[in-house]
Amino acid sequence: MRKAIAEAEVGDEVYGEDPTVAALETTVAEMFGHEKALFVPSGTMANQLALSSLLEPGDELLCDADAHIVTYEGGAAAAVGGISTRTVVGSPAGALDVDAWLAQVRRPGYHALPTSAIAVENTHNRGGGAVLPLASLQALADVGPKLHCDGARIWNASVASGVSFAEYGAVFDTLSVCLSKGLGAPVGSLVVSTAERIERARARRQQLGGGMRQAGILAAAGLYALEHHLPRLADDHARAARLAEALGAPAPQTNLVLLTVPDPFAVVRAAADQGVLVGVFGPSTVRAMTHLDVDDEGLDRAIEVLGSIIRR
Amino acid sequence: MRKAIAEAEVGDEVYGEDPTVAALETTVAEMFGHEKALFVPSGTMANQLALSSLLEPGDELLCDADAHIVTYEGGAAAAVGGISTRTVVGSPAGALDVDAWLAQVRRPGYHALPTSAIAVENTHNRGGGAVLPLASLQALADVGPKLHCDGARIWNASVASGVSFAEYGAVFDTLSVCLSKGLGAPVGSLVVSTAERIERARARRQQLGGGMRQAGILAAAGLYALEHHLPRLADDHARAARLAEALGAPAPQTNLVLLTVPDPFAVVRAAADQGVLVGVFGPSTVRAMTHLDVDDEGLDRAIEVLGSIIRR
Amino acid sequence: MRKAIAEAEVGDEVYGEDPTVAALETTVAEMFGHEKALFVPSGTMANQLALSSLLEPGDELLCDADAHIVTYEGGAAAAVGGISTRTVVGSPAGALDVDAWLAQVRRPGYHALPTSAIAVENTHNRGGGAVLPLASLQALADVGPKLHCDGARIWNASVASGVSFAEYGAVFDTLSVCLSKGLGAPVGSLVVSTAERIERARARRQQLGGGMRQAGILAAAGLYALEHHLPRLADDHARAARLAEALGAPAPQTNLVLLTVPDPFAVVRAAADQGVLVGVFGPSTVRAMTHLDVDDEGLDRAIEVLGSIIRR
Amino acid sequence: MRKAIAEAEVGDEVYGEDPTVAALETTVAEMFGHEKALFVPSGTMANQLALSSLLEPGDELLCDADAHIVTYEGGAAAAVGGISTRTVVGSPAGALDVDAWLAQVRRPGYHALPTSAIAVENTHNRGGGAVLPLASLQALADVGPKLHCDGARIWNASVASGVSFAEYGAVFDTLSVCLSKGLGAPVGSLVVSTAERIERARARRQQLGGGMRQAGILAAAGLYALEHHLPRLADDHARAARLAEALGAPAPQTNLVLLTVPDPFAVVRAAADQGVLVGVFGPSTVRAMTHLDVDDEGLDRAIEVLGSIIRR
Repeated sequence: MRKAIAEAEVGDEVYGEDPTVAALETTVAEMFGHEKALFVPSGTMANQLALSSLLEPGDELLCDADAHIVTYEGGAAAAVGGISTRTVVGSPAGALDVDAWLAQVRRPGYHALPTSAIAVENTHNRGGGAVLPLASLQALADVGPKLHCDGARIWNASVASGVSFAEYGAVFDTLSVCLSKGLGAPVGSLVVSTAERIERARARRQQLGGGMRQAGILAAAGLYALEHHLPRLADDHARAARLAEALGAPAPQTNLVLLTVPDPFAVVRAAADQGVLVGVFGPSTVRAMTHLDVDDEGLDRAIEVLGSIIRR
Repeated sequence: MRKAIAEAEVGDEVYGEDPTVAALETTVAEMFGHEKALFVPSGTMANQLALSSLLEPGDELLCDADAHIVTYEGGAAAAVGGISTRTVVGSPAGALDVDAWLAQVRRPGYHALPTSAIAVENTHNRGGGAVLPLASLQALADVGPKLHCDGARIWNASVASGVSFAEYGAVFDTLSVCLSKGLGAPVGSLVVSTAERIERARARRQQLGGGMRQAGILAAAGLYALEHHLPRLADDHARAARLAEALGAPAPQTNLVLLTVPDPFAVVRAAADQGVLVGVFGPSTVRAMTHLDVDDEGLDRAIEVLGSIIRR
Repeated sequence: MRKAIAEAEVGDEVYGEDPTVAALETTVAEMFGHEKALFVPSGTMANQLALSSLLEPGDELLCDADAHIVTYEGGAAAAVGGISTRTVVGSPAGALDVDAWLAQVRRPGYHALPTSAIAVENTHNRGGGAVLPLASLQALADVGPKLHCDGARIWNASVASGVSFAEYGAVFDTLSVCLSKGLGAPVGSLVVSTAERIERARARRQQLGGGMRQAGILAAAGLYALEHHLPRLADDHARAARLAEALGAPAPQTNLVLLTVPDPFAVVRAAADQGVLVGVFGPSTVRAMTHLDVDDEGLDRAIEVLGSIIRR
Repeated sequence: MRKAIAEAEVGDEVYGEDPTVAALETTVAEMFGHEKALFVPSGTMANQLALSSLLEPGDELLCDADAHIVTYEGGAAAAVGGISTRTVVGSPAGALDVDAWLAQVRRPGYHALPTSAIAVENTHNRGGGAVLPLASLQALADVGPKLHCDGARIWNASVASGVSFAEYGAVFDTLSVCLSKGLGAPVGSLVVSTAERIERARARRQQLGGGMRQAGILAAAGLYALEHHLPRLADDHARAARLAEALGAPAPQTNLVLLTVPDPFAVVRAAADQGVLVGVFGPSTVRAMTHLDVDDEGLDRAIEVLGSIIRR
């Protein structure tokens, strides 16, 4: 990948003239069967540009109370986009209770602010990497409001469920996808949608300061990752399953393992001291993740280290 | 009240020089045991000024998924205040499931956006005028984030529960109260809080265009309403109970009666044709309200008209 | 006027059902030859609703560096409306240098943010009540961007210049007009424009919390003021001219007199001690205003008091 | 530089763990004698984060009517930051008329919105790359409001004027600097200020979606550029002078040459057809820029091509 980065052909992306960025955008748009895609610096910006292409300030977005959008983006949907969020508290283990969501969708015509868009996250980070069933997503798509997918980990969803990217793409009005987590590229996400919405997202990207000049060096890494790292996500899932089993955690659907512990800060510190990096995920939860840089040997080490810490 | 309006002493309230507004603000602040109050044109503005005095853009507010703030204010908390809302879907009949709320409160220190404030609505409009128990409110006040009360109908809550305004005031960091609904004044609401927050609210009011020049004529009506109309709210509650019983609706806690009907638009139209004004409240709900201008005779008429429409 | 207020017929204006408000809105729209008008609590809100009906967040507004919009509204055009302002520093005495304005209007197509609207203020408050010539306004209207008039004192402009309200109305896409300054009504302004823009302004008014319930008592005062107080504005202008002459100030075009003094705070205090109310307007400027409540006797008194203070 | 990129040591910058980014931030902060710097994807974001660290929504910023901030950032200061801009129309050739600026600075205490910050751009892009004199900048710094420098081309300013980065740094409360224009790095800018403001900027960066994961590959390019490309900017200036002289354009102060032509679009197209890239800069202006990739041979070619087009 470093070689791809070093040899990337570039141009001024702010004027839409970087050929490697253009190639990446075309590749990703086609994967999802959409007209266009736009390369941006982060998943947070991709989500915001997608939402701003669907919604005006003051419009309502319905999403999970644990969605990345209302959890890890500094309140940006409201603070930057002016978007009013109502949330549904999720079911255990990230399952999608479609009836609970439908009951919260507000139709126009009753004085109340109508629901203009719904956002789901697939896989669901705080739901432990849960995959949302295609039929449930289709049910949400059919109800009226626009449907956005925070697809930072949609690669894992597809690999785990066998649902193709095109099938996912067909359900959503907009998607954000991320090259820098499971796929292992250094920087970058994309918004995927119609040509018209991507045009709006491009103007909005300028406003948010997300236009990067010779971004081709980042896009080259993204193209490399899509070609070489997508196929190997199944290995991450298998390793996550092995990790969970060894530690007595619930079986994961993809590459995230949530461990319930009394003092997550202590666990994270003790593991880091022994070279195993996991994260505090809540007052009694630690999150472990398998990815590109965790091979079988590394996993054995993680099992050993985390196991001994937890047993203490 | 019209006489009070016509004889009001006024000044330029934008410079804080209207004596009648000042008298109203002092009266209301003292009722709730707070330092200051600020007179504003509407309940929506009162809520927004209160929230902006508690929160910065991007901060999180936790509230009911049916709260006025996220339902009837055009998405203003987000669009104007930049406030990120997460919501808890309410229990039937407007009850406050404190544990469900506490489970959604996010503490600082876990990367996730912490909950900076909680808002409740007392009485709860979409909860059918339900009164929130003081002990539940106290539990929310104790958990950490600031606590705001949308008190448009707090007059009814106090009359129905026997909890004094001072007791309510002691629980909340900010309150909005409304003179123009149950109390029968023509225009106006107030924000109630500390001197410092009201100072911020005053600056913010200028930004939102809520400064009214000789507002004393409106404040005079408000003072009149507090003196003469507060005591009679118990009559509204008794009449609402009689209405609900007669129509087979669930017994109301205050002055709102929710009727479940197959076609609310048809019911509202048919009732209006016979001079009885009720409102569509949802796809299968009509809301009836007893107030100042509904006496026993009017109630008999409403029972007769609505009864015959519903029985059809 | 108090009698008109006390006897006003009212309804719930939030649902558009107050007949006195409707009558006022129709009257004002017709005066300016526009389709619709909307009643709001303040001139600041009227300006903001007008601008938000013309502009999206991020759009550019060109206005005078001394315009009320960028001077006395708490930065609301940007803070609430997201509007990007570029300003032209005005000529002495409030004259409108059309060429200087036209040189700053940016056309689309050059990467730079194009100018989407221009706002003028007529009469110009910080320009000492200057009347902007109709030909200059027409030149701005012809250049491309939409044209808004902050018409808080357009009544004075019309009376002083002989240009009719309909002639002014024909030049502007939107106007704000104010009932509570020279006209002497206690509270309220209106936005005037097309039906479509007023529809947007109405929705935006809800978001800003500017919907007032039984606003008819305020609208009644406004109707009274339009009927009885408009004709007498010429008297204010004559008195302002007499005041300026007596105090050696530049001759005013309408009802504002700007006095250059070494210590404006001292002048304002000393005058107030003797019952004459004037305002600090800048580090070396005091503003005096003639209005409804200043008769010839009052003017004599003001001349005497201010004269003796200034001579000291 | 490609080698530096390919071999960069990286970490997760969103958690502040990328060592190459940290090295770049320290280097740049020290160059300007400030406590901290923050790496971001673009100059637009750098400007916005700096402004948001100095100003609250609704605060006033005074800047040039041709500043990048109000010209090329999609209205972001207002749309995203809520910042109210008042502007001074610049003198010809980008000179800074300090008295004209000082006359527009509003002090607190006169009801009018006070000026909270001033922004200058050095060198001044639309001023043809003009260098702002240190004494003028100091005069603005002394007047009261905070002072921000859009320093996208401050490298050129320093090389042309001999004023050191530390001298510039001492005058400004915040600076933005850009690695991707004259310096030739592919992507990235930095905000420079106190530790406290950079802390706020970091939180704000998350909100705007400017956090990049393994940004070290970009930072490595920036470090390389600072070391290897800074010294050679004098060559760009010399070549720009030669270009201007050859084409009969006003002598440039740095690396930008503005050509006045009847049809800039035609000139840009014709030049591009012959491999010379210049840009439309206004209805009668073309901008040419010398940089890293323009050597003497390239310049000869540009002179020949542009000369023959212009003479036609």
